[in-house]
Amino acid sequence: MSVATRTVAELAERFALETRGDASRAIEGVATLARAGSSQLAFLANPRYRNQLDACEAGAVVMRAEDAETYVGTALIAKDPYAAFAKIAALFEAREPATPGVHPMAAIDPTAEISPRASIGPFVSVGARSRIEAGAIVGPGCAIGEDCVVGEDCELVARATLVRRVRLGKRVLIHPGAVLGADGFGIAMEHGRWLKVPQLGGVRIGDDCEIGANTTIDRGAMDDTVLEEDVRLDNQIQIGHNVRIGAHTAMAGCSAVAGSATIGRYCLIGGGAGVLGHLEVCDRVVITAMSLVTSAIREPGEYSSGTPLMDNRTWRKNAARFKHLDALARQLGPRSKDSR
Amino acid sequence: MSVATRTVAELAERFALETRGDASRAIEGVATLARAGSSQLAFLANPRYRNQLDACEAGAVVMRAEDAETYVGTALIAKDPYAAFAKIAALFEAREPATPGVHPMAAIDPTAEISPRASIGPFVSVGARSRIEAGAIVGPGCAIGEDCVVGEDCELVARATLVRRVRLGKRVLIHPGAVLGADGFGIAMEHGRWLKVPQLGGVRIGDDCEIGANTTIDRGAMDDTVLEEDVRLDNQIQIGHNVRIGAHTAMAGCSAVAGSATIGRYCLIGGGAGVLGHLEVCDRVVITAMSLVTSAIREPGEYSSGTPLMDNRTWRKNAARFKHLDALARQLGPRSKDSR
Amino acid sequence: MSVATRTVAELAERFALETRGDASRAIEGVATLARAGSSQLAFLANPRYRNQLDACEAGAVVMRAEDAETYVGTALIAKDPYAAFAKIAALFEAREPATPGVHPMAAIDPTAEISPRASIGPFVSVGARSRIEAGAIVGPGCAIGEDCVVGEDCELVARATLVRRVRLGKRVLIHPGAVLGADGFGIAMEHGRWLKVPQLGGVRIGDDCEIGANTTIDRGAMDDTVLEEDVRLDNQIQIGHNVRIGAHTAMAGCSAVAGSATIGRYCLIGGGAGVLGHLEVCDRVVITAMSLVTSAIREPGEYSSGTPLMDNRTWRKNAARFKHLDALARQLGPRSKDSR
Repeated sequence: MSVATRTVAELAERFALETRGDASRAIEGVATLARAGSSQLAFLANPRYRNQLDACEAGAVVMRAEDAETYVGTALIAKDPYAAFAKIAALFEAREPATPGVHPMAAIDPTAEISPRASIGPFVSVGARSRIEAGAIVGPGCAIGEDCVVGEDCELVARATLVRRVRLGKRVLIHPGAVLGADGFGIAMEHGRWLKVPQLGGVRIGDDCEIGANTTIDRGAMDDTVLEEDVRLDNQIQIGHNVRIGAHTAMAGCSAVAGSATIGRYCLIGGGAGVLGHLEVCDRVVITAMSLVTSAIREPGEYSSGTPLMDNRTWRKNAARFKHLDALARQLGPRSKDSR
Repeated sequence: MSVATRTVAELAERFALETRGDASRAIEGVATLARAGSSQLAFLANPRYRNQLDACEAGAVVMRAEDAETYVGTALIAKDPYAAFAKIAALFEAREPATPGVHPMAAIDPTAEISPRASIGPFVSVGARSRIEAGAIVGPGCAIGEDCVVGEDCELVARATLVRRVRLGKRVLIHPGAVLGADGFGIAMEHGRWLKVPQLGGVRIGDDCEIGANTTIDRGAMDDTVLEEDVRLDNQIQIGHNVRIGAHTAMAGCSAVAGSATIGRYCLIGGGAGVLGHLEVCDRVVITAMSLVTSAIREPGEYSSGTPLMDNRTWRKNAARFKHLDALARQLGPRSKDSR
Repeated sequence: MSVATRTVAELAERFALETRGDASRAIEGVATLARAGSSQLAFLANPRYRNQLDACEAGAVVMRAEDAETYVGTALIAKDPYAAFAKIAALFEAREPATPGVHPMAAIDPTAEISPRASIGPFVSVGARSRIEAGAIVGPGCAIGEDCVVGEDCELVARATLVRRVRLGKRVLIHPGAVLGADGFGIAMEHGRWLKVPQLGGVRIGDDCEIGANTTIDRGAMDDTVLEEDVRLDNQIQIGHNVRIGAHTAMAGCSAVAGSATIGRYCLIGGGAGVLGHLEVCDRVVITAMSLVTSAIREPGEYSSGTPLMDNRTWRKNAARFKHLDALARQLGPRSKDSR
């Protein structure tokens, strides 16, 4: 668990950053502004925390040039302190390397192909015709069904499920409890009973995607459900069948996209937000938390729905009026014509 | 994985459909209108996709009679093309049959009863006094606790959990990560601390129900939580303790029903919608996505709450006004009396 | 499964309650008012169910003194009947004790420390340097990573995951599918691609907490994510990294708290409600179901957002007007000045 110590000067050189103050300080780890000690590195990106600089005891702080002007301690100057910090912090992350090989308590179908450089943990099952490529780590309790591909250097942390026909690109990271490739929700009513519509497609996940804990991505009805490269999904997200999500889009926890919707590239979907089925959302759209997208979005920009939080008594009064908003507006309508 | 080829005429006869065009064409599989090739069957149900018919290269398309009038290719005519397609597509679904028997890496309590015609996968645990009936498939990693019944021809795909006192009817399909029979959320405050209320009931799931991935259904406090027959739940749904859901009701992803609520038959609950506890919702109610049901519904029909999506700047202005809607209405109120 | 029978008088003495009617009646279990038979105990707390007393056949009913005045059957009188019932019902809960020891089909890292008085079920993995303390029960299929602590008398029911650096206090109860300690959702955009921010913190859960099925609690980026003692989380809740939740707070199903927010003590968060990141919510705040907290709350009380449920036709008309609420108010605004 011991991690090499580096001086501020070494970090500056490695990541092409400028320094202020004593660059010979030794850094052994990272911490928050409020808690970092003299051998730890902190960062300041959100102005909300600027007032913590005064009492900060960090060995060095990554910050913007303008924030460093009045700072008396040692600083690493970055245009984007959060991104710079992300790269530095990775140096101090101690992770045991996974040992290649298949755990004796794994259940591998004879037709599955496991790279000798992959690592398969205990209680993992791998189904017929599935392939686990070099450098992939499949953690304890994962269930991989038939006709799946786990690409090079993917990691399934633990207890993830790929049901069937799920193909992961390279370096895909899947957190515990995620389920990819379950049946899409396809049902048709006939004679008063539901008929199940077979879900014959699969799921395709691009390189460098991340899938959060307990997130679900259904497989397509006929075509595949697709995440393009570098899509980042937080926890408990639901992606319906035949959805397509563009590259570099990020979705926050508990958001959902219904079947056959298409989300563009570089979108940001807020926590708990929803997108109805069969809609198209263009590139570079931001949806704020708990908003519902009910029609296509064709212009980049930020979109919202909902009402503000109020104390419950005030809210009750306003909400009751919302029930009669149309009548209210009608009442006003003709008058307003008069007054113009 | 090879699937028998069938002619359009054979399909028409089997499912009592009419044909237009060349009924001798051979069909080997299904695909979407946009992608189907000359040996594949597609369907047209949603008018949104009607414009894809012109460029469609499908061997045949299932559609309504009126859509077929101008179609030059081969068509199978159905009143409900989606339902007809569902049945045809099932012919082309290639699934390996599960092998009956208990995997050597399963942990079965000596008092559990496993039908010799059931299939129990690796890393499955079955608790005391539970029974797995003929034709049932319990996939890898499922955990079944005490006093459960998995009825004939049920399928637990993988990594599903039945905690205790969960009884499934016949042909119930449970997707990965679903948890049935966890403790209902019963707590009582006493002397500033929470007391846990024991959850002594169970869960009863009717025949032909489907439970989505990572959906949770708590067991009852004293009586059972009940899903009647043919209830269809999508992914990530939460059903509280002592809820009862009527037959043939379908719920979309991320919706939730709080404890002791009763939902009628043939209801459709939209994605992310919620129903508060102890309420009754009658038969044939439709709740649109992300709406919240806060009082009993006694009339069939469609119900909604929420506000429309807007660009964030416009939304901010309108939302700010919502905080003063009651004052606004009051201001208008007396005037309106004057004007009548 | 047989449970000792107790008389009403014995129950009254044990829990310091008064009785009305025949205290010699023998009670063998508990049931609802509507279903309890002559040897079962029921309770009445919610006035909604008072009308069930007339037809009630329970051996005895726990209720408030005022409700007992007109009740002809046997009653146990309690100030808080729900709390009293919770304690009595616990007597009648039959649970087989877990057998201490490690199941032969478990995978324990040689550096992990398992108390001889802990019970480790089948298909459980325990990672490097983790410790399972006396009386703890780790049910089938749980995955515990590195550097975790499962405190005395904790119970992980089944298929729960502690990813890494998760420390549970005593008597913590975790339901199936819950994932604690997955990577927080930390990403930074650089040159058009996402950079992953290492998540170096952990999760700390206080004594007597309960974590619902499929709930997720991410580990902190640098500091820990913290639940203080006696926090009660229902199913499918999402807690972001570096969140802190005060003691005795309860959250209902599908609610969520985004990263770095702080929730006070004795709060009640309704089902599906959300709290945005970096906010502070003070003690004794109630958030109603599906409300969104978008700024700090500094006063105890009840808070809400959203609009009431309406039939869809009425809702459409009102919702359309919401899009022009600001214009409507402006129209009214100047006039209102005139009229004052």
